[in-house]
Amino acid sequence: MKVAVLMGSKSDLPIVKECLDVFKKFSVGSEIRVMSAHRTPEAVSEFVKGAKDNGFGVIIAAAGKAAHLAGAVAANTSLPVVGLPILGSAFNGLDSLLSTVQMPSGVPVATVAVNCGTNAALLAVQILAVSDEKLYRKLTDHKEEMKKKIEEEDLRLRSETECP
Amino acid sequence: MKVAVLMGSKSDLPIVKECLDVFKKFSVGSEIRVMSAHRTPEAVSEFVKGAKDNGFGVIIAAAGKAAHLAGAVAANTSLPVVGLPILGSAFNGLDSLLSTVQMPSGVPVATVAVNCGTNAALLAVQILAVSDEKLYRKLTDHKEEMKKKIEEEDLRLRSETECP
Amino acid sequence: MKVAVLMGSKSDLPIVKECLDVFKKFSVGSEIRVMSAHRTPEAVSEFVKGAKDNGFGVIIAAAGKAAHLAGAVAANTSLPVVGLPILGSAFNGLDSLLSTVQMPSGVPVATVAVNCGTNAALLAVQILAVSDEKLYRKLTDHKEEMKKKIEEEDLRLRSETECP
Amino acid sequence: MKVAVLMGSKSDLPIVKECLDVFKKFSVGSEIRVMSAHRTPEAVSEFVKGAKDNGFGVIIAAAGKAAHLAGAVAANTSLPVVGLPILGSAFNGLDSLLSTVQMPSGVPVATVAVNCGTNAALLAVQILAVSDEKLYRKLTDHKEEMKKKIEEEDLRLRSETECP
Amino acid sequence: MKVAVLMGSKSDLPIVKECLDVFKKFSVGSEIRVMSAHRTPEAVSEFVKGAKDNGFGVIIAAAGKAAHLAGAVAANTSLPVVGLPILGSAFNGLDSLLSTVQMPSGVPVATVAVNCGTNAALLAVQILAVSDEKLYRKLTDHKEEMKKKIEEEDLRLRSETECP
Amino acid sequence: MKVAVLMGSKSDLPIVKECLDVFKKFSVGSEIRVMSAHRTPEAVSEFVKGAKDNGFGVIIAAAGKAAHLAGAVAANTSLPVVGLPILGSAFNGLDSLLSTVQMPSGVPVATVAVNCGTNAALLAVQILAVSDEKLYRKLTDHKEEMKKKIEEEDLRLRSETECP
Amino acid sequence: MKVAVLMGSKSDLPIVKECLDVFKKFSVGSEIRVMSAHRTPEAVSEFVKGAKDNGFGVIIAAAGKAAHLAGAVAANTSLPVVGLPILGSAFNGLDSLLSTVQMPSGVPVATVAVNCGTNAALLAVQILAVSDEKLYRKLTDHKEEMKKKIEEEDLRLRSETECP
Amino acid sequence: MKVAVLMGSKSDLPIVKECLDVFKKFSVGSEIRVMSAHRTPEAVSEFVKGAKDNGFGVIIAAAGKAAHLAGAVAANTSLPVVGLPILGSAFNGLDSLLSTVQMPSGVPVATVAVNCGTNAALLAVQILAVSDEKLYRKLTDHKEEMKKKIEEEDLRLRSETECP
Repeated sequence: MKVAVLMGSKSDLPIVKECLDVFKKFSVGSEIRVMSAHRTPEAVSEFVKGAKDNGFGVIIAAAGKAAHLAGAVAANTSLPVVGLPILGSAFNGLDSLLSTVQMPSGVPVATVAVNCGTNAALLAVQILAVSDEKLYRKLTDHKEEMKKKIEEEDLRLRSETECP
Repeated sequence: MKVAVLMGSKSDLPIVKECLDVFKKFSVGSEIRVMSAHRTPEAVSEFVKGAKDNGFGVIIAAAGKAAHLAGAVAANTSLPVVGLPILGSAFNGLDSLLSTVQMPSGVPVATVAVNCGTNAALLAVQILAVSDEKLYRKLTDHKEEMKKKIEEEDLRLRSETECP
Repeated sequence: MKVAVLMGSKSDLPIVKECLDVFKKFSVGSEIRVMSAHRTPEAVSEFVKGAKDNGFGVIIAAAGKAAHLAGAVAANTSLPVVGLPILGSAFNGLDSLLSTVQMPSGVPVATVAVNCGTNAALLAVQILAVSDEKLYRKLTDHKEEMKKKIEEEDLRLRSETECP
Repeated sequence: MKVAVLMGSKSDLPIVKECLDVFKKFSVGSEIRVMSAHRTPEAVSEFVKGAKDNGFGVIIAAAGKAAHLAGAVAANTSLPVVGLPILGSAFNGLDSLLSTVQMPSGVPVATVAVNCGTNAALLAVQILAVSDEKLYRKLTDHKEEMKKKIEEEDLRLRSETECP
Repeated sequence: MKVAVLMGSKSDLPIVKECLDVFKKFSVGSEIRVMSAHRTPEAVSEFVKGAKDNGFGVIIAAAGKAAHLAGAVAANTSLPVVGLPILGSAFNGLDSLLSTVQMPSGVPVATVAVNCGTNAALLAVQILAVSDEKLYRKLTDHKEEMKKKIEEEDLRLRSETECP
Repeated sequence: MKVAVLMGSKSDLPIVKECLDVFKKFSVGSEIRVMSAHRTPEAVSEFVKGAKDNGFGVIIAAAGKAAHLAGAVAANTSLPVVGLPILGSAFNGLDSLLSTVQMPSGVPVATVAVNCGTNAALLAVQILAVSDEKLYRKLTDHKEEMKKKIEEEDLRLRSETECP
Repeated sequence: MKVAVLMGSKSDLPIVKECLDVFKKFSVGSEIRVMSAHRTPEAVSEFVKGAKDNGFGVIIAAAGKAAHLAGAVAANTSLPVVGLPILGSAFNGLDSLLSTVQMPSGVPVATVAVNCGTNAALLAVQILAVSDEKLYRKLTDHKEEMKKKIEEEDLRLRSETECP
Repeated sequence: MKVAVLMGSKSDLPIVKECLDVFKKFSVGSEIRVMSAHRTPEAVSEFVKGAKDNGFGVIIAAAGKAAHLAGAVAANTSLPVVGLPILGSAFNGLDSLLSTVQMPSGVPVATVAVNCGTNAALLAVQILAVSDEKLYRKLTDHKEEMKKKIEEEDLRLRSETECP
C-alpha cells in the first residue's frame, strides 16, 4: 500500500520533502500532490474518494493557517488521515494546530507536531506496518538507529566536557 | 434576497437563534440548515453551489472546534460568507476563531465575534443593504434605537448613583 | 460603488497595497486613506458618515495592536465594514485580531485573516457583487483561475517527484 | 477634581461598583456613566472633550471584548485615562486586556488588572493625589491599613496552624 | 488485533469510556488499563514492549496536564500510538494538547481533539481497518449513519423553523 | 530543617493546606505565613533574610495573578525558593505561572504546576532529603505507595471492564 | 515635579530612551536609573520610599520576563507607578505584560503597551499635567501635531495613489 | 555531591553550556549527558536510578517541544529534578514550559525560565548548599556581586544621562 501526501500550497514543500525521505528509507510507495481544501475542493474529494481503490492506505495532509485540508480529506474517506500543521507568520503554529486537531466527534485526524514532516511520514509507515511484519521490523531497526545516534552524541559530548 | 444560516451541529442552535431574531426584525428572508463540513460534505457543496440561483445573497456558517464549515462554504461560492465561531469546552474560543478567520489568500470568510449570532446576522443584513436603500434605512433606525437604549441606561444609572 | 481602505498608520501600507491589486484586477473603484481612530478620530467619523453619500459601498479598515479603527468605522455607519488585523512585534497577531473581531453585539466587523490584504479586498468585492452580476462573474472566473493555478502546481510537482 | 467612570455596557456595573467604594472612602467626587464607543460614539467624544472643563481630572473606562472605550476616550482628551478590562465568556480576559493596553504610540491608556475596579479607582486617586497632599496622606494611611489587615490574617493563621 | 487504552489516572475514565462504546460498536477487542508515565513507568514500558506480541495493533494513551503518557508509550514501541489529551482545570487544554502532540522528530504520536475519546477510538479502528476490509466497510457504514443523523436533524429543524 | 510556606493572600489557603498534609506525612517541620510582596514587602524581606538562621531550609511561596511573592523571596535569600502559582479567574493560570517562572538570570524560582500544593511540598521535602538519608528513604517509600495505588486502580478497573 | 524611570536591566535602555525624548520635548525633569527588583531590592525600596520627598511625581518601571519591578515600586509608594513591559525572546510579551498588569487589589500599576516607552512617558506627563495647566496645553498641542502628521501622511498618500 | 545535566538533543547544548559556567564558578562537580526520554528511554531510567549512588544530588533535564525528559527523570528518582524548558520554533516556549511544569500530583519538577541555563544551575547549587555552609556563602557572595554589577551599571548610566 502507498501513502498519499497532499499539501494545500506549494509553499509547504520544504516540510513535505521530509516525508519523502522517510518513504524512501522505508521503501514505501508514495504520491505527493498539491490540492487545496479551499481552491480545489473537488479535486480533493475526487482524489480522496478513490484513494483506497488506487492503493493508498494512509493520506497525509499538510496545511497552514486555518488548516482545513486534513479535515476535508477525513470527511471523504475512512482511511486514517494524518494532519501535518504548517507554521505561518502569525499565531506561532496555534492556528494550524488547532484547525487540524480539534476535529468534531466522528471524524478523527491523526495530528503530529507542527512542521514535523518526518513524524507525519513515520506515523504513516507505522500504520502500514500494523499488518506488515517486514515493515514493522524496519521500524524497530530505525528505532535502534536513533538510539545509537543519541548514544554516540552522548559519548562524544562526554569526551569533550570534563568538569571539575 | 435571502440569507442561509448553516450550522455544523444542532448544538449550535441557541446561538443561531439570535440570527433569526435579527432577520425577523429586518424582514429579511432566511433559511436555517444543519450541515456539516465533515459529516455531510456533499450536502454542503451541493447547497452552496445552488445558493445564488436559489435566491441567497449571503451565507452564514456557524461552527465550533476546528470550525471548517465557513471555509467549506467559501470554497464553493463567490457569495460573501459570514463565519460565526462557536465557543467550545476547551481553548476558550481560540480554536473556532482561528479555524474560521485564518483563511488562505483568495478565499475570505467574514468572521464575527465568538458566539455572537446577532452580529453574524446584522453583517448579513448590512451586506444585503448595500444595494437596498429601504433595508439600509432600517439599519440606520436600528443604530438609533441602540443609541437610545444606551442613553436610557445612562440616565437611569445617573439617577441611581449619587456620589460625593 | 467604490471601496474605501482606511489604515491607522502609514506602516500598514505594504499590506494595504495587496488590496489595490485586487481592486485593479476587478475594476472596482477605491480610495485609500491614512486615518487613525486615536490620532484623527474626527477625520474618521466625518469620512465614514459621508461614505455612503460619497459612493462607497464597503469600508476596509486596517490596523495593528489595539486595532480600534474598524470598530470606530462601524460605530459611524451601517455600511459593511471589513477589518484587516495587522501583525505587530508582540503577541503574534492576537492583539490586533481580538481587537478587531470581538465587537459587541449590534456592531459587527467582518474580520479577515491577519495581514491578508488580498482577502479584505476580495471580501469587499464579493459584497459589491451581491447586486452586480457582472462583478459576480468576474469572481467566478477568478475562482477558476485560482483552481487552474493549483492544478498546474500539482502537475509540475507530480512530474518532478517520482517516488518508488 | 472629580473622576469620571464610563462603562461600555450596564453589565459591567458589578465591577464598576468597586470604584465607587474607593471614591467614597477617599471622599473623591465621581460621576458614573454608561457610554459605548460603538453605540454612542458621539456621547463619548462630547463628554470627554468637556471633561476637563467640567472638573474631571481622570477618566476611567471599563469595557469588555474588543474593549475600545478607553482608547476612544484617550483619543479625545489629554487627561490621564485608566482602562479597566472586563472579563467575558471567551478568551479569558485576553481580548479586553489586549484591546485596552496595546494602544499605539502617542495615545496611552493606563491599564489595570482584568475586572479589578478597585485598582482602577485607586490609580485615579493616586493621580489626583500627585498635587493633593491631604489625599496622598489618605493613600498612605490606606496602605498602612492593608498592611495591618495582612498582618492580622497572618497572626490568626499562625495561631490556628501548629505544625510539627 | 486488539486496541489497548491506557490512562494516566482513573479520573480520565469518563472520557475513556467513549472509546469502549466505539470498540463495542465495531466489535474490536480492547483492553483498558490505568498506568502512569510518572508513577508506574516500568509497568508502562513492560506493557508496551509486550503489546505487539500480546495481539495489540494500536495503543491509545489518555492523559492530562503535562501529558507524557502517549510519548512514554511511543518511546517503547513501533506500533501506532494515539494520544488523547485530557482537559484540566488550568490552561484550557493547551497543556495536555501541546505535551501530547509536540513530539520530537522520530517518535510520532497521533493526537486527536482534547477530551474526544470517540475520535481516539475511531482512529484506532481506522488503523486496524487498513488491512481489514470487513472493518473498513463497517467504518463506511458508520460514516453513512452519521450523515443520515445530520440529515434528519436538518429535516427536523427545517420543519420547525419557518422564517419570512 | 523546616520549610516556610508563605502565601500572598488568605484566599490561597485551600491550596496551601495540601502542603501541610505532605509535611505531616514526612514529619517535616513547617511554618505557614500570610505575607504579601505588595502589601507587606518589609515583612517578607525581614522574614526571608532571617529564614536560614531561623532553621528554614526551603521557602515555598504561593501567589496568584502577577505572582511576585516567590520572586520577592528569592531576591532576599540564597535558600532554594519553590514557587506555587495559584489559578485566578482570568487567564487560566497563565498569569501566575509566567510571573513565577520567568525569573531573570541569577535569581531562580523552582516553579511547580499551577494549584499543585502537594508538589510544592514534595519538592521541598526532596530538597531537604538531599542530605538526609532517612527522609530520602521515606520519599522512596512514598513513590512505592503511589505505584501501588495506581496498580490497585488498574486491577480494579480491569476486573470491572470486560470488553469483547 | 520630576519623573523617575527605573529599568530592571541595562538591556532595556533602547526602549527607555524613548521616554527621555518625550521628557525633553515637554521639558519635564527626569532621572533614569538601573535597579532590579530581584538583584537590588533594597536599592529599589530605598529609592522609591524617598521618591516623593525627592521631588518625583510619577515613577516609570520598565522590565521584561517575570516583570516584577513596577510591582515592587508600587509596594513602596502611593505615587502613581507606570509599568512598561519589555518584549523578551519567549512568550511574545505575554510574560512581561501579565506580570506587570495583573496586580492584586489595592496596589495598582498603570500599564502601557509592550515596548512602548513613548506611551509610558506620555502617561507620566499627563499625570503631572492634571495640576499643571501649562503642561496640559503642551499635551493638547502635541495631540494637534500628531493629528497634523497623520493628515499630511494622508494627503501624500492620496496624491500618490490614483485608483480607477 | 555532583549535578547531572541531561539534555534531550545535542541542539540544546548552547543553553546547557550556561550551566557549566555556573558549576565551574561554584566548584560544583557535574556531568553532562545527551539522553532522550523518547529515543533512549532505558538509558535515562538506568542513569537516573543509579544517580544517587553515583554521587549526584540534583538532576537537571533540558528539553524542548513536548519536553518529557524532566518528567521521565522525576519518575525514576526521589532526587530533586530541575526542568529547563528549551525554546523551539513554534509556540514561543509555551509547549516546553507547560510540558515541563504541569506535572501530576506526586511527581514534582522544579521548573525554571525558558532557555535560562544559568538559573537551572544556580537552583541546583542552592539545593546542594542547603547542607553545605561553604557553598551557601559562595551563593551569598554571588548575590553581592550581582548587586554590585547592577549598581555599577546604574552609576555609569547616571553619569551618561543628564536630563533637564
